[in-house]
Amino acid sequence: MSPTPDSAVRQYVQQHRDAFLGDLADWLRIPSVSAQPEHAADVRRSADWLAEKLKETGFPIVEVWTPDGSGAAAPAVFASWPSDDPDAPTVLVYGHHDVQPAARADGWHTDPFEPRIDGGRMYGRGAADDKGQVFFHTLGLRAHLAATGRTAPAVNLKLLIEGEEESGSPNFRALVEANAARLTADAVIVSDTGMWSETTPTVCTGMRGVADCEITLYGPDQDIHSGSFGGAVPNPAAVAARLVAALHDADERVAIPGFYDGVTPLTDAERELFAELPFDEASWLRTAKSHGTLGEAGYSTLERVWARPTAEVNGIGGGYQGPGGKTIVPASARVKLSFRLVAGQDPEKIELAVRDWAAAQLPRGIRHEIEFGAPTRPCLTPLDHPALQSVARSMSRAFDGQKIRFTREGGSGPAADLQDVLGAPVLFLGVSVPSDGWHAPNEKAELDLLLKGAESAAHLWADLPNALR
Amino acid sequence: MSPTPDSAVRQYVQQHRDAFLGDLADWLRIPSVSAQPEHAADVRRSADWLAEKLKETGFPIVEVWTPDGSGAAAPAVFASWPSDDPDAPTVLVYGHHDVQPAARADGWHTDPFEPRIDGGRMYGRGAADDKGQVFFHTLGLRAHLAATGRTAPAVNLKLLIEGEEESGSPNFRALVEANAARLTADAVIVSDTGMWSETTPTVCTGMRGVADCEITLYGPDQDIHSGSFGGAVPNPAAVAARLVAALHDADERVAIPGFYDGVTPLTDAERELFAELPFDEASWLRTAKSHGTLGEAGYSTLERVWARPTAEVNGIGGGYQGPGGKTIVPASARVKLSFRLVAGQDPEKIELAVRDWAAAQLPRGIRHEIEFGAPTRPCLTPLDHPALQSVARSMSRAFDGQKIRFTREGGSGPAADLQDVLGAPVLFLGVSVPSDGWHAPNEKAELDLLLKGAESAAHLWADLPNALR
Repeated sequence: MSPTPDSAVRQYVQQHRDAFLGDLADWLRIPSVSAQPEHAADVRRSADWLAEKLKETGFPIVEVWTPDGSGAAAPAVFASWPSDDPDAPTVLVYGHHDVQPAARADGWHTDPFEPRIDGGRMYGRGAADDKGQVFFHTLGLRAHLAATGRTAPAVNLKLLIEGEEESGSPNFRALVEANAARLTADAVIVSDTGMWSETTPTVCTGMRGVADCEITLYGPDQDIHSGSFGGAVPNPAAVAARLVAALHDADERVAIPGFYDGVTPLTDAERELFAELPFDEASWLRTAKSHGTLGEAGYSTLERVWARPTAEVNGIGGGYQGPGGKTIVPASARVKLSFRLVAGQDPEKIELAVRDWAAAQLPRGIRHEIEFGAPTRPCLTPLDHPALQSVARSMSRAFDGQKIRFTREGGSGPAADLQDVLGAPVLFLGVSVPSDGWHAPNEKAELDLLLKGAESAAHLWADLPNALR
Repeated sequence: MSPTPDSAVRQYVQQHRDAFLGDLADWLRIPSVSAQPEHAADVRRSADWLAEKLKETGFPIVEVWTPDGSGAAAPAVFASWPSDDPDAPTVLVYGHHDVQPAARADGWHTDPFEPRIDGGRMYGRGAADDKGQVFFHTLGLRAHLAATGRTAPAVNLKLLIEGEEESGSPNFRALVEANAARLTADAVIVSDTGMWSETTPTVCTGMRGVADCEITLYGPDQDIHSGSFGGAVPNPAAVAARLVAALHDADERVAIPGFYDGVTPLTDAERELFAELPFDEASWLRTAKSHGTLGEAGYSTLERVWARPTAEVNGIGGGYQGPGGKTIVPASARVKLSFRLVAGQDPEKIELAVRDWAAAQLPRGIRHEIEFGAPTRPCLTPLDHPALQSVARSMSRAFDGQKIRFTREGGSGPAADLQDVLGAPVLFLGVSVPSDGWHAPNEKAELDLLLKGAESAAHLWADLPNALR
């Protein structure tokens, strides 16, 4: 009796487990820290290493791209394996091969770039974020081919693995725009997120976008004496504070006119699914290193961080900040604000709304400047999208039939650029868990979960053609 | 025909003008900068120089005191000349002999410690603040004796000229408390303020007090990711801003419960007198280097800075203040507040009110610390106080019968400690004008005004015994 596809996939994955882990460990030894110029050659080496492995995996097309074409910026790896089925849909997998800085002195128990397997986990910088989750695709793809007996994948499979994500992906959008014709896809699979927990497998359905600005307020031409003039002239530090205080109403809703225009509301179905998650506030607060919750009235903590737009002050400064006191009315003050955006919000309209709102808050005698950074758009795939259902179905098979629940991600990432430029829905296939310690000392990946990631991918490539038909 | 007292005073002052100015120039050559440790010996030399001049003037008791008794802190000069009239009131003159730092490079046209007379003005650091105004008392006292034919003043005259005023008088209150028995007086004359202008002679009737505090707000245990947690936990920078915004109501009144308790209201008479002053808002704004007025509803600019209590944010800081953005919820934020106080307000009660108010503003999850500095009390002498009337009368005689108007001073100073510790009313006899440039490059004093200060003092010593009888 020939094996069922599910057991065939698992059998292939288990048989190649040790080689897969050995290769991953080799990759983790390359300190591809994009934020540190002294590691530029390592980032390049990491790209070349991955390119070589993708060729070994069977990708007929493998290229190393430098985002700005100059060879100076951190290289991305592009690979493509067309299906032998002319009707096959095209899928683009996104991940990154650069890693956060790490040093033994930060609290690592062992060398962060000498990976170590212990208790079913692989410890090392990048094990979860994101090399482990990129690399399971090589195993998943080969399991897909082996289990289905194909010589080419059931989807036209493309990979784009960037090298600057941990540095804020400064050139990513330009890279995607410049290569849009070659990156075109029916769906984007982002493998750079995680699940709720080891025991609650989930699929992320979207990320928030972000717009940020700095507002500088100018009052007197120089710091002036608060005894001689205080109480009779506007104080830019007080105006900055009032501006920040005016960001929210008494219900902690953002009070900028027009801010919520167009926001895609949370559906009852999604709220119910969120509510099913085993959320424990005390434990969430420990993760947040915070000592209380506060947010928009009418929404749960998860809804607030995943599905509602926010206004946050990231920094404020003005006047005297040294030891002791100084009786001045300061000459200027600054606030740095960021706005998390959800589906339906347009960063350009948000910028205009913030500009209008800020200008309207200021008393006579205060001049202001406001400067916006480049925004990141939100992305969201509706729960009933067939590709999303396909991802959930494929994961459920890898997770022995467990129900796959849905989450969102409160942060923002370059995934939205892919959705935006390529016009394709973004799906998230990630198997990392909160305990993996992204960006922290002793980052690790659960070996079983990495293998389930590979299995999920193997099922997905077989399932998607039907789902998207 | 013997000269009238007024012409006799003027004659004496004019006859001794050149010697007076020569001596003052010698004193200005001593760079008694209390804030700069390298000038400690100069501050000491300045005290000794003044002590010697006071002996020459005729004071039978002249001592140099070091505020902490150790000889390390900047020395003050004490002098006393008892009246030969057993019923004479006792007057204590306050001033200071230390000066602000000054360097040619700051924009001085000539060496700040090589005084220069030009166009009826003496230029040099300390010419107006405060050596010139201390030193006119030596000439005024001798004119008083000469014009009245007395061998001892008509008042028991004491002088206390401190050496740390430009460093915030850190030891002054302790010095006054330690020597309270010897400093006891029926009235204190402070010669360390100015007049409205050259053409509008005025008497200051009080100074505001000041209480200041720093409030530190703690949120998450470290900066946390605003994408993952923002919008669901309290942000200490936002709370700091809300605290500052909550300081005032829509009428720019201080909104701290109990803040105005006990405030001595402005009388209609004083408001009318303030309104008579030739106030020009555009010119005042230039002096304030500000571009608009803003303050408590129902009060004029002068009333706001002179006679109304205020709450001011002197500094605010929290989160990321470097270039660009950083998407965090910061771990902490700080605000530095100062409160100008007017007569009737008790700094201790204000501190309690601020503490209660701040604690009541904070959401769950935000911890705070609040620390107060040493307060300075307000001081105010009512318009109908006989000693104040005597000062005005004496100045009017020096100013050829001109009407003397009344001002207040928005700042705070050690004068209040004298009122507080000695229980004596504080009067202000100062002849400096705004154009004198206190603390600025090219500080100067108007020679005619210094001499009118001497004349005013001469008249005052003759007038006070009747006024206080």
